[in-house]
Formats: sequence, structure tokens, C-alpha cells
Amino acid sequence: MRIVVVAGGIGGARFLTGVRSAAPRADITAVVNTGDDVTLHGLRICPDLDSVMYTLGDGIDPERGWGRRGESWVVKDELAAYGAEPTWFGLGDRDLATHLVRTRMLDAGYPLSEVTLALAERWQPGVTLLPMSDQRVETHVVVTDPDTGRPQAIHFQEWWIRHRAALDPSAFVQVGVEDARPAPGVGEAFASADAVLLAPSNPVVSVGTVLGVPGLREALLASPARVVGVSPVVGGAPVRGMADRCLPAIGVEVSAEGVGRHYGARSAGGLLDSWLVHETDAADVPGVDVRRVPLLMTDPATTQAMAEAALNAARA
Amino acid sequence: MRIVVVAGGIGGARFLTGVRSAAPRADITAVVNTGDDVTLHGLRICPDLDSVMYTLGDGIDPERGWGRRGESWVVKDELAAYGAEPTWFGLGDRDLATHLVRTRMLDAGYPLSEVTLALAERWQPGVTLLPMSDQRVETHVVVTDPDTGRPQAIHFQEWWIRHRAALDPSAFVQVGVEDARPAPGVGEAFASADAVLLAPSNPVVSVGTVLGVPGLREALLASPARVVGVSPVVGGAPVRGMADRCLPAIGVEVSAEGVGRHYGARSAGGLLDSWLVHETDAADVPGVDVRRVPLLMTDPATTQAMAEAALNAARA
Repeated sequence: MRIVVVAGGIGGARFLTGVRSAAPRADITAVVNTGDDVTLHGLRICPDLDSVMYTLGDGIDPERGWGRRGESWVVKDELAAYGAEPTWFGLGDRDLATHLVRTRMLDAGYPLSEVTLALAERWQPGVTLLPMSDQRVETHVVVTDPDTGRPQAIHFQEWWIRHRAALDPSAFVQVGVEDARPAPGVGEAFASADAVLLAPSNPVVSVGTVLGVPGLREALLASPARVVGVSPVVGGAPVRGMADRCLPAIGVEVSAEGVGRHYGARSAGGLLDSWLVHETDAADVPGVDVRRVPLLMTDPATTQAMAEAALNAARA
Repeated sequence: MRIVVVAGGIGGARFLTGVRSAAPRADITAVVNTGDDVTLHGLRICPDLDSVMYTLGDGIDPERGWGRRGESWVVKDELAAYGAEPTWFGLGDRDLATHLVRTRMLDAGYPLSEVTLALAERWQPGVTLLPMSDQRVETHVVVTDPDTGRPQAIHFQEWWIRHRAALDPSAFVQVGVEDARPAPGVGEAFASADAVLLAPSNPVVSVGTVLGVPGLREALLASPARVVGVSPVVGGAPVRGMADRCLPAIGVEVSAEGVGRHYGARSAGGLLDSWLVHETDAADVPGVDVRRVPLLMTDPATTQAMAEAALNAARA
């Protein structure tokens, strides 16, 4: 069985562990958001790819949910002592080695997809990790500058981490997206898939960013497989992350139904054949097979059960 | 009083602490060897500049004599886990931050001399730190390849650290030197100096490399100040480092007299007005004021006394 999962960072990573458990013999490909990527201190950082890689490779910090287990912060403190900006990004020592290797390979001319496969050699994630694109696409957030009152676009990471998403976003812009195309392997993965799953990741800045790469949405829709989405919103709030800060900016209600309608029915030009919402939620999404199942990823068993529900919907 | 010190790494750094103590109100400029510099993991590393900066800025590890006090090695171990070569270089986490800041500034187009001044802002070494050149000059060592039996040039750091200078060197080559010129400030420092001191650094790969930069030797010789050298060899062996592995390759005897004659009398086209050898050594260097004084840098008092002896010779 061939499964393609469209994923962001932490939620996508955890969902992928469930898919891997639910279908241990399947050929699983993760198409991962790279719109959060950022270059800091000359290092190319890919937070979502790394969250997926570390989680599936058993290197993630389980308490924080991001970064490496047993992390230290020596380099970050030293950079701050030099007055080297920014100081707000959580650059751990172990994590930094990943960025050093990646940056060196990118500088040597390897595309991000090949770099990602090389890094994954160490971590053996058990799935094929693909960036959405080898081209650089960075999400910027349009906010109102508190000093001037004028609109200003800041990098997603600055909005997300430095300002903890506290500044009201009026738009999300994918800088560079017009020159991007799906990474090698993405089109083939969709074309040969038996199931396409949209992880319970942020619909705007994760799944939305991936699908914003020219040609990627078309490749997904051309797949012979059923497309099953999993709601990241339960009871009117995101299970994790700050989708509630992102959805209003694109005019989408923060509810399982709102996100389901935003994705839309495949039969009507949207994405979904099936839409999984939490058992306590209700969602009317015309043309879509809506299923109410427990959407819990609190432990390996519930995470696997949720993935099984998604795979069942894909087989329907 | 204006003092210029030509220096390599550890020995030069320690000597500079003595000069700073001996002449606390002097304007001291260190012209530092950059032939040991190397790019590893995409990071530009300047071991001698950093040894001087950390030592004078009280950040050096006093046991090892190089690198940062309280150092950790997390990034290095992680790089090794990725199979990222080389693994033989002692890249500490604290130290790495220096290289990150330096690399980022160099990539942004700043010359090494400006980068060095910017890094020194943090460390306040109390002397003006100048690289010998803003151009990249790297010492390579010609050795016999143990597998093929043929001559092979390897980077100085590979010879020095990876092979611990065990491979017999047949020559030292300054790659890039033909396009180098003294860094801004070097010529001016010599021109306005009241004393020029050659630190007890390696005469081949430290002092020799500095003086190999086209125009630098001429600038030194044009100085109105007396030039005083301090022998790095005591009793037929280098006090530290591996000058005994380097001197034979250029046909120089490993003795205070041998190095003194190699430097030569300024009156005869050489470098020296005065040459300091250890009190138990004898040296006949024609045309040079040879002084036998304790050449000990075992503690701050002996180091200062040695620097005072050098400054006295400069005043003669």
C-alpha cells in the first residue's frame, strides 16, 4: 500500500507516527511544508522537516514537542554574548549540527530534497521525507507595525516565535512561490498513491502552504487515491499550534466544519473525499464523507487509532 | 609608546599578556598569523586570532591552552553522528559561535580585519588585533603519501592536528600568498612603532607565514623602531608546539642560535636588531644584540619579566 501524507511540523509528525504504526508494511511518503524555513546566523533551518525527522527517528524532545531530546543551548548563549541577532529563535546545539550539515550541502549545490534524504539516512524515519519544493518559499505575515501603524510583512518565524502570534495577521504571503515547483518525487507519489491523507496540521501555514506550490494541488487532485483530511480543530480550537490565529485572516471559521468547507469537496473542485472530525464535533461539508471519530494523539495507541480511521476512510 | 607584536597562536597569545602587563599604557598592536585558518563544516576558523583573542579576553581554557574555558562538544559529536567529516578537529560549542559570527560577517562582505575588530568588541583584549592579511592565505604541508609514496600537500591543520605533525614535512607552502597584501593598519602600525617584537611563536608556520605576506616584511624593516625577537627554542627544543618538526624542513637547526641566524641581522638584510635567548642558552648571531634572559612564561610574573626584557632591548 502506498500512502502520501501532506504534513506540517509537530501535528504532522505525530500523525505520521500513527500512520507508520497503522500500516507498518506500507510505503509512506510525507510531503512536508517548508514555508516555515528560515536562514538564521547563516544556517538554513527547516523546522517542519526536522520535527518530522526527529519525531519519526526518535530524537525529538517529547516534553517540548520540537527540537532534540537532551538539548543544550551553548551556541545560542554565545551568539547572544556577541550581540548576534536574532536571540529569540530556539537554536539548540544538537539541532544546530543538522542545520550545519544541511547548509553545507545546500551551499555545495545539492537540492533540499537530496539533502533531506541524506539527513534522514541517520534518523531512519521509516517514511520517505520530501520537502514540498526544492525552491525556497517562505511564508511572510502581514501585520500592522505597532510603531507606525502601517502594514508590514515579517517572516513567519518572527511572527510565530518572537511575537508568539500576538500580532493580528491580515494576510499570509508565500514569498518565492511563483518560481517554485513540487520537489522531485512529489508528483510520482501522488500519482501512485492508494491513500492521500491531509495531516491535522495548520490549514493555512502548513497544509495551505504545501498546496500553494504551483502544480502540487493539481498533482494531488490527479491522484487515483481518495483524499482524506483530518481536522486540526476540535471543539472550536486547534488541538495544538495557533491555527485560530491564522484561519480568521483568510476568512475561515475556527471549527472542524469551517476547515472542512475551506478544503471543500473534491467533487466540487476542492480537496476532500473524506473529512475526519472529532467525535464530539459536528460538520456539514457538502459532497464530503464526514466521519466522527476520536481525534486524539495523546499516546501511541490513540494516534494509531486515528490514523487507522483515516486509512479506513481512504479505502471506502 | 607604540608596540607591534608579530604573533602566532598560543605562545604569541601568552607573550602578548606579558607585553600588556609590562606596558599597561602602551598602544599595542598584534599582527597575527592567519595561515592556520581553515574552513570546516562551512565555518571559517582562525585558530591563532582566536587563541590571542580568548587569551587576552580571559576566555581561554588555561589547561588546554587553546579554545574556550568551560567548553562542550555537543555539535562536534552530532556532526560525527551524521558522518560529517572531518571529525579530528576540536570544534567546541562555545568556540563554534565565534566561527558562526565570523563566517556570517565574511559572507556579508566584511574583510577579516573588520570582522576581527567586531569580535574583539566582546572580548576587549586591550590590544588592537590585526590579521596579517585580509586575503586568504593557507599553509599547506608537503608530505609523502604513506600509501602511494608520492608527495602530497595537505592543509596545515590536517598535518598538525589529524597527524600530530608525525608525517615528515618536505616543504611548507603558503597557498594564495601571491595575491595577499598586509591587512589595513599593519603598515601604519610598523611605521609608527616604538618597538617591534617577534613573539616566541613558530618561526616557520607562524612568524614565517606572517612575514611571507608580500610587503609585510618590507613594512617591518622600514619601521623606525628596533626589532626584537624572542627565541621559541630553549635548550634545543621548542618550549611548546612543534617547531622542531618545522625548522628542519627549511634547513634551520633547532636551537636559539639556529633560529636567530635564520631571522638574521637587520643590518645584513635580516630582521633582528636584538635576539633574546634563554639564560642557559648561547647564541652567536653576527650583527645582532643577543641577550640571555629567563624566557619563561610559566606564570604572569615570569611572562611579564620576559616582555620587559624584550622592551628593554627595543629601547637600547
